[in-house]
Amino acid sequence: MTGREIENLIKLLSRLPGLGPRSARRAVLQMLKKPEMLMLPLADSLRATAEAMTTCNNCGNIDVTDPCHICADYNRGPDIICVVEEVQDLWALERGASFKGQYHVLGGTLSPLDGVGPDDLKIDQLINRARADAVTEVILATNATVDGQTTAHYITERLMETGVKVTRLAHGVPVGGELDYLDDGTLAAALRSRSVV
Amino acid sequence: MTGREIENLIKLLSRLPGLGPRSARRAVLQMLKKPEMLMLPLADSLRATAEAMTTCNNCGNIDVTDPCHICADYNRGPDIICVVEEVQDLWALERGASFKGQYHVLGGTLSPLDGVGPDDLKIDQLINRARADAVTEVILATNATVDGQTTAHYITERLMETGVKVTRLAHGVPVGGELDYLDDGTLAAALRSRSVV
Repeated sequence: MTGREIENLIKLLSRLPGLGPRSARRAVLQMLKKPEMLMLPLADSLRATAEAMTTCNNCGNIDVTDPCHICADYNRGPDIICVVEEVQDLWALERGASFKGQYHVLGGTLSPLDGVGPDDLKIDQLINRARADAVTEVILATNATVDGQTTAHYITERLMETGVKVTRLAHGVPVGGELDYLDDGTLAAALRSRSVV
Repeated sequence: MTGREIENLIKLLSRLPGLGPRSARRAVLQMLKKPEMLMLPLADSLRATAEAMTTCNNCGNIDVTDPCHICADYNRGPDIICVVEEVQDLWALERGASFKGQYHVLGGTLSPLDGVGPDDLKIDQLINRARADAVTEVILATNATVDGQTTAHYITERLMETGVKVTRLAHGVPVGGELDYLDDGTLAAALRSRSVV
């Protein structure tokens, strides 16, 4: 159809989540009109990031530095560690920009059926970090799924020995959410943890 | 939020049509998990295409060779030239793969209000190509818009002198289309050019 190189580029782009063959073709066409505007910078940025990217040995975040820019940020308190399942969860919390402590990425959830045990997750590293004198609280921010809650429960027990305070995210009505569309579990939780106005 | 390089990559990706900041972030995260799978090939492909890409001096198609692979294809008849507004129209027709002749990309439509005159489009080049003995027919495949039809009309007059046969795409009911959702103009056209079963 078009030159082999262009077809190849379209095929690669269409493998990105959110881009199909059609939108990839549109993207390539737009880029081809001014290659120096987006195409070359994008090529350089992709290569630079791919070569620089690494996993933070402290928290498990993906970044171009190790320790990552969050662990290396002296403005962030060392006393609270927020435990998340995956890197995208960490990024989501950072978008909120309301948490100013440390993170710990587990790399998944306990899932006996899939053969994922405690040793497959960064749980021991978390216990070691929690032992540090500076740490006073561990927030369990795993997803509100069965696996997520199971993992949170297991980690809670493991953290007993460290004597650190263990908390979890509140359940309730999403801001801007309509009760009518909420599941019963969430509504029940929102009622249980209602607060005085 | 994340390292500067990653943020920069997300910003660049989100400038692609069809990708917003959120999906760009998701794409980057997925790519970062296995950089050698998609990230590096994509970087190389973008650079290679950007450096190799050129505009075909014969038909105006964008390709990595000049003349483009369509003009250079000896299996395609030299007798019919299909005139389109933009490169994406050419690509769309090629997707159909039902046309096996030559193309000519105008690079837009006549639009007096926007100050786009005949000299701003590749019309003279088209006339010259149509003068070649081999050429017997010119298909006007401009869009069915006011500007597109105006341009087609102008080109038809200009092609008079060459004595070549001038045709245009048929109007009618889209295959798989429902009459109920069609505009009156299309329905009227479909009726006018009805064919015997």
